[in-house]
Amino acid sequence: MSSVVANKRKIINDPVFGFISIPNDLVFDVLQHPYVQRLSRIRQLGLSNFVYPGAVHTRFLHSIGAMSLMQDAIAVLRQKGIEISHAESIAAQVAILLHDVGHGPFSHVLENTLVRGLSHEQVSLRMMQKINEQMQDKLSLAIQIFTDEYSRHFLHQLISSQLDVDRLDYLCRDSFFCGVSEGTVASARILKMLNVLDDRLVVESKGIYSIEKFLVARRLMYWQVYLHKTSVAAEQQLIYILRRAKDLAHKGQDLFASDALRFFLYEDVSATDFLTDDSVLDKYALLDDSDVLSAVKQWQNTGDVVLSTLSRGFTNRCLFKARMSESPLTEQERKELREQYARHFGIDEQQACYFFDEYSVSKDTYSPRDDSIDILFADGTTKDISQASDMLNLRMLTRRAVKHYLFYYKI
Amino acid sequence: MSSVVANKRKIINDPVFGFISIPNDLVFDVLQHPYVQRLSRIRQLGLSNFVYPGAVHTRFLHSIGAMSLMQDAIAVLRQKGIEISHAESIAAQVAILLHDVGHGPFSHVLENTLVRGLSHEQVSLRMMQKINEQMQDKLSLAIQIFTDEYSRHFLHQLISSQLDVDRLDYLCRDSFFCGVSEGTVASARILKMLNVLDDRLVVESKGIYSIEKFLVARRLMYWQVYLHKTSVAAEQQLIYILRRAKDLAHKGQDLFASDALRFFLYEDVSATDFLTDDSVLDKYALLDDSDVLSAVKQWQNTGDVVLSTLSRGFTNRCLFKARMSESPLTEQERKELREQYARHFGIDEQQACYFFDEYSVSKDTYSPRDDSIDILFADGTTKDISQASDMLNLRMLTRRAVKHYLFYYKI
Amino acid sequence: MSSVVANKRKIINDPVFGFISIPNDLVFDVLQHPYVQRLSRIRQLGLSNFVYPGAVHTRFLHSIGAMSLMQDAIAVLRQKGIEISHAESIAAQVAILLHDVGHGPFSHVLENTLVRGLSHEQVSLRMMQKINEQMQDKLSLAIQIFTDEYSRHFLHQLISSQLDVDRLDYLCRDSFFCGVSEGTVASARILKMLNVLDDRLVVESKGIYSIEKFLVARRLMYWQVYLHKTSVAAEQQLIYILRRAKDLAHKGQDLFASDALRFFLYEDVSATDFLTDDSVLDKYALLDDSDVLSAVKQWQNTGDVVLSTLSRGFTNRCLFKARMSESPLTEQERKELREQYARHFGIDEQQACYFFDEYSVSKDTYSPRDDSIDILFADGTTKDISQASDMLNLRMLTRRAVKHYLFYYKI
Amino acid sequence: MSSVVANKRKIINDPVFGFISIPNDLVFDVLQHPYVQRLSRIRQLGLSNFVYPGAVHTRFLHSIGAMSLMQDAIAVLRQKGIEISHAESIAAQVAILLHDVGHGPFSHVLENTLVRGLSHEQVSLRMMQKINEQMQDKLSLAIQIFTDEYSRHFLHQLISSQLDVDRLDYLCRDSFFCGVSEGTVASARILKMLNVLDDRLVVESKGIYSIEKFLVARRLMYWQVYLHKTSVAAEQQLIYILRRAKDLAHKGQDLFASDALRFFLYEDVSATDFLTDDSVLDKYALLDDSDVLSAVKQWQNTGDVVLSTLSRGFTNRCLFKARMSESPLTEQERKELREQYARHFGIDEQQACYFFDEYSVSKDTYSPRDDSIDILFADGTTKDISQASDMLNLRMLTRRAVKHYLFYYKI
Repeated sequence: MSSVVANKRKIINDPVFGFISIPNDLVFDVLQHPYVQRLSRIRQLGLSNFVYPGAVHTRFLHSIGAMSLMQDAIAVLRQKGIEISHAESIAAQVAILLHDVGHGPFSHVLENTLVRGLSHEQVSLRMMQKINEQMQDKLSLAIQIFTDEYSRHFLHQLISSQLDVDRLDYLCRDSFFCGVSEGTVASARILKMLNVLDDRLVVESKGIYSIEKFLVARRLMYWQVYLHKTSVAAEQQLIYILRRAKDLAHKGQDLFASDALRFFLYEDVSATDFLTDDSVLDKYALLDDSDVLSAVKQWQNTGDVVLSTLSRGFTNRCLFKARMSESPLTEQERKELREQYARHFGIDEQQACYFFDEYSVSKDTYSPRDDSIDILFADGTTKDISQASDMLNLRMLTRRAVKHYLFYYKI
Repeated sequence: MSSVVANKRKIINDPVFGFISIPNDLVFDVLQHPYVQRLSRIRQLGLSNFVYPGAVHTRFLHSIGAMSLMQDAIAVLRQKGIEISHAESIAAQVAILLHDVGHGPFSHVLENTLVRGLSHEQVSLRMMQKINEQMQDKLSLAIQIFTDEYSRHFLHQLISSQLDVDRLDYLCRDSFFCGVSEGTVASARILKMLNVLDDRLVVESKGIYSIEKFLVARRLMYWQVYLHKTSVAAEQQLIYILRRAKDLAHKGQDLFASDALRFFLYEDVSATDFLTDDSVLDKYALLDDSDVLSAVKQWQNTGDVVLSTLSRGFTNRCLFKARMSESPLTEQERKELREQYARHFGIDEQQACYFFDEYSVSKDTYSPRDDSIDILFADGTTKDISQASDMLNLRMLTRRAVKHYLFYYKI
Repeated sequence: MSSVVANKRKIINDPVFGFISIPNDLVFDVLQHPYVQRLSRIRQLGLSNFVYPGAVHTRFLHSIGAMSLMQDAIAVLRQKGIEISHAESIAAQVAILLHDVGHGPFSHVLENTLVRGLSHEQVSLRMMQKINEQMQDKLSLAIQIFTDEYSRHFLHQLISSQLDVDRLDYLCRDSFFCGVSEGTVASARILKMLNVLDDRLVVESKGIYSIEKFLVARRLMYWQVYLHKTSVAAEQQLIYILRRAKDLAHKGQDLFASDALRFFLYEDVSATDFLTDDSVLDKYALLDDSDVLSAVKQWQNTGDVVLSTLSRGFTNRCLFKARMSESPLTEQERKELREQYARHFGIDEQQACYFFDEYSVSKDTYSPRDDSIDILFADGTTKDISQASDMLNLRMLTRRAVKHYLFYYKI
Repeated sequence: MSSVVANKRKIINDPVFGFISIPNDLVFDVLQHPYVQRLSRIRQLGLSNFVYPGAVHTRFLHSIGAMSLMQDAIAVLRQKGIEISHAESIAAQVAILLHDVGHGPFSHVLENTLVRGLSHEQVSLRMMQKINEQMQDKLSLAIQIFTDEYSRHFLHQLISSQLDVDRLDYLCRDSFFCGVSEGTVASARILKMLNVLDDRLVVESKGIYSIEKFLVARRLMYWQVYLHKTSVAAEQQLIYILRRAKDLAHKGQDLFASDALRFFLYEDVSATDFLTDDSVLDKYALLDDSDVLSAVKQWQNTGDVVLSTLSRGFTNRCLFKARMSESPLTEQERKELREQYARHFGIDEQQACYFFDEYSVSKDTYSPRDDSIDILFADGTTKDISQASDMLNLRMLTRRAVKHYLFYYKI
């Protein structure tokens, strides 16, 4: 069936980048795979829409957008004389299309509750391998590029590095849907400045200011969107909800949940199970935002005070308050809070712990340790951006900014 | 609690219109009402994201955007000397904020399956009345304006007429999120041209070309987005899924569903029940997209061939094909199709009817019968746009365009 | 020298379409030709900036933008299997780059005063031939395409037809710089829908709504921008200024003017002179907006009442008033106006005629007589858009809209 | 006459900010003043269109845009409880409308050639005073605010400080017309964050990231646009052209020039003459881009080798080449260059100096010495942005970046 459809619908309309072409049948078949279609039911920014109500775009569209930037990047590099074969081009596109396929709904929340000890990157790789099996190994090169086992390192860097098309897409896209115009980065311009030297991605020196701007925009998006205290508060609340639900499940209480969600609530799944037992992966592949939202909504009416209170708050946007704090709570302060909530709700102090939390968020803007951004000068030499820019310097950029928060349920 | 929050968050960031201010506490409280928060889990365009993957924006943001245009419209009219009191201004904003509150998930689908015989307008009014009761009648003026029982007709027209802020918002917004730039209308410009004559909204004559453009953009959006054959096909498929689920429910089969969805699957609810029995409304107010999506996904694994086949297709984007046709199927053709599906799936011919459908969509661009667009000339006279424009003429605009489709499951 | 420069600057930054690439050295050399550089001193919209102060963009940028759309159009057609050779591609780009090269400053004004009887198209062709001589006949194919003498008609249609890239660029560009967002056409989308059938450009049928929208946008731009009464009034005023200056010149009065402008003021140049005498073309090729603006500014202080009054008004934006009228002035009314201005300025009635004018503007939206827009249906048949659209009809679209104005100097 | 016009045209269409309202008759009359209308013939970015062909916007539109931001800023401050009277509001708008009125064509060029020793700020003030005399002192408050002699300092800061509406407009506007999207600053967002503390403008602390972004965008615009080497090269070439013309004028040679330009070529005008002799100001007020462009174009055909060569190059975009250099030329190198050009053109070594130049450009991103950006924290304290930001630090921001160039005519 897919081949018929493939003929009919080769262009996707993206509000951010305009028309995006699906280059061939393989990419189309990958797009149609249930693992990928599932991303169309998972929001890219999880709970950010509590703050930015336009931010409801999906991981599906992000993946397609990143693929489109990959097409542009390859065209730019080819124009500069870097030879990239058709097979490499398609593989790089497939790899970026699938780079996030392992994400679950509210990924950060899930990794702290139902699927502990497992990163979405590991799941992505596992899923790619499964799709590869189903598609007669046509994804092998894509997987090699994804895992950086292919001989040409720069192709991997286009997928995962400080300047990869993943970041270029999500900064553009997230700022677009949030309405935070300041987060926009000039993707087209940055791509135009890319080059390859000794099998590594470099940025031509006239692109220095664009890179500075890119780093500042990214930083702004972190503090203004990704780590916005209200989003983080909502995440904490959802973490507590799922933890409480799991506790109750383990005590044998029957909770409303789809089969897929039920599995992860009632079973204890280890990272190993995940990577070895296909039935676990199959369950996971059925999860999306709707399972969680629908269950939490129904849990409003559960008998348990903790679960129903937090679920009702979550559903009706009565979220944890966030207060920035200089230092962690003292033992005494924690005790008082416990007592206060216990008294208010008529619950024990252990349950009272579900109504407040401490949290630290930290972010460094740029870390050359992991992977640098190399600037290429006219004389053929390169420097790391932290050396090349007279504005940015290493100390400043690598300094971790840390913020402490107290989250608590307003009573 | 809400008043505290109200102090903190009076500006909403909208990717379409920028910063939108919440004007006062009443509006904030309305925004926080569970009926309204629920709209943040209902997509404005239902299933259009199968075609336009960016089109996942919610009815919540549309309502806020329309409120913002109402603020602009009032400011324009006041500048032209039309007196509008503070109370009227707030009421008009509340009315537009709530104009769509009665929408359920996939509204058109629901009205054809679970809540037959009931329009979302009726539910909106019922919900407004309920909120009004809870808020000490502070919404009475808003409701009067909504129902056109208030003495000043033009305020109602701003909410519901050929040029209301509802339309101006959704055309802008839907085209923005779909990435169909041609659907954009110049809302700001059109609002600048509004005036009031004899208690009716009129458009100043220099706005004629903008109105022509507005009508053409609307028409384009209808055919290119709202009535796109793939969206309509997906809707038909979902209608069949829910009808089959309801059939099975009535036969006593146990299907996965949230309590709210279960209620409408297993009970037969009449329009009267809805408007008289608060418990029915309460159930309805718990429904959103997640209930439907989550259930359909799980129904993939139901024993029933019809339900599982259609649900699996819906979840994995294997949708009904649509073929435009000149004329309806003959009885003979219908019979052959029934036999074909019956044979293929090993089901009876009655069940086979779930795999194809005929459908006609029709739309007239502009109908002065319902409500005209009056153009105000410098000499104080007015003409209907179909008279005032030398391009548009009544016959053309009021001609209904009709398209016939055959939808069928590809085997 | 140019080849060195060519290496350095192959990308132009266009606020409308983003990065535009200069494809090869020939195109670069054409861009650097003095005839083309001159377009960077000629505003695309003449005097429209009196109404839309942002509309100061030049014919130079329009030419480059149109070239960019030509690149896109060729890419689309090649993707659909239409073979277009490299030589044809470059020639088409050169042809569109030069399609307006014959424009003088305030083209419409000049054609009514200093260079009567000569269209800018004729001058464009003459200039192309001159450049061709200087560039060893490298432009011969471009000229053939421009004049429709090349065997492949559709290439000419891309340059000059109802849907040429000239129109697509200027509608986008003019609406962008004017800030009239409603005039924008979805160039990218329309180009995607182009195809070639029997050597003619056609639009695929799913593009019908875009074409409708294009025609309406064009119509809107005509009435709201190109034929805006204040721009037309300013044009009329400039026509009168130049006519008066020419009269005075012929009477032997010494007026400030650059050599190039002086030539056309003091000599009577026929169309034949133009096309046969290279020295006339050389003079013309030196004219740009600055000659006219600078001269008119200085003529404020001329002794002649007519010339100084109109020039002072023009320089300080005291323009002719425009009043729409149903019918032409009667002989009696004309006489009264003449007497009034004669009395006011102490001039004779012949001179008084310089202070008012009548003018009719007319425009038909679409005329299939000249060149149709053919819609291609799935079954391979074509229909003219006026037949294919259920909204537009021939009678309506071909009806000429006419408006009469009286322009007069306010005293 | 103007009052009549005032009634008719109170809204200006700006491609950057949309509709801009002229608030009252005084502002309209100021807009219509010949000093201000003259700005519509002076390009905001001088010669930047040699690099960015879209950058032909005028100082007129910039002034109007800045006025529009002033309206927004005042509305924001009033909403926060800062009382600003109607008279203050109008005065602030008039002051910003006139803040650049003293600019001549190619301001930097002129200040280095024809009007040495005089800043455009001084001329702006002088012109404001003249307009004030003509308008019955209605501009007195505006002038006080402009010169910071009014009691409320923050009103002056809105016109002239690190975060004034002048900068906010020109960064937005210049990046828009250049097509350098990275230079855009979120003016609307920054304005929303303004407040007044102790009569000084401050930025609320949640605006820190926006301010960081603003500083980085400004820095990018400096190096990518304002100090782009090709623009600077073109400026140097024009400086040499005017110097050579002045030399020839002083030697008694007759050169083509409008009366206004002629005056400054043939007379030696001191700064004192300017501020004391109204006839000098009157001449200056007649100068605009067209006088310079038209004259240089004609000087192509002058007998003088230096003037004709440089003028021909300027007119046909054969500009000085720019080469970045580490150190200044040695005396020996300068000598060799002089000899080379002298030989090539058959001129003496003094004239040969007109064909090359050295130039240093420097820029600090932010200098708290001049005027700081104060960040207001929730506890009521303020810090300078260089203290408040964990990314920016004083040392880095105040470090002057310097670049040396050699400019030379390519032979």
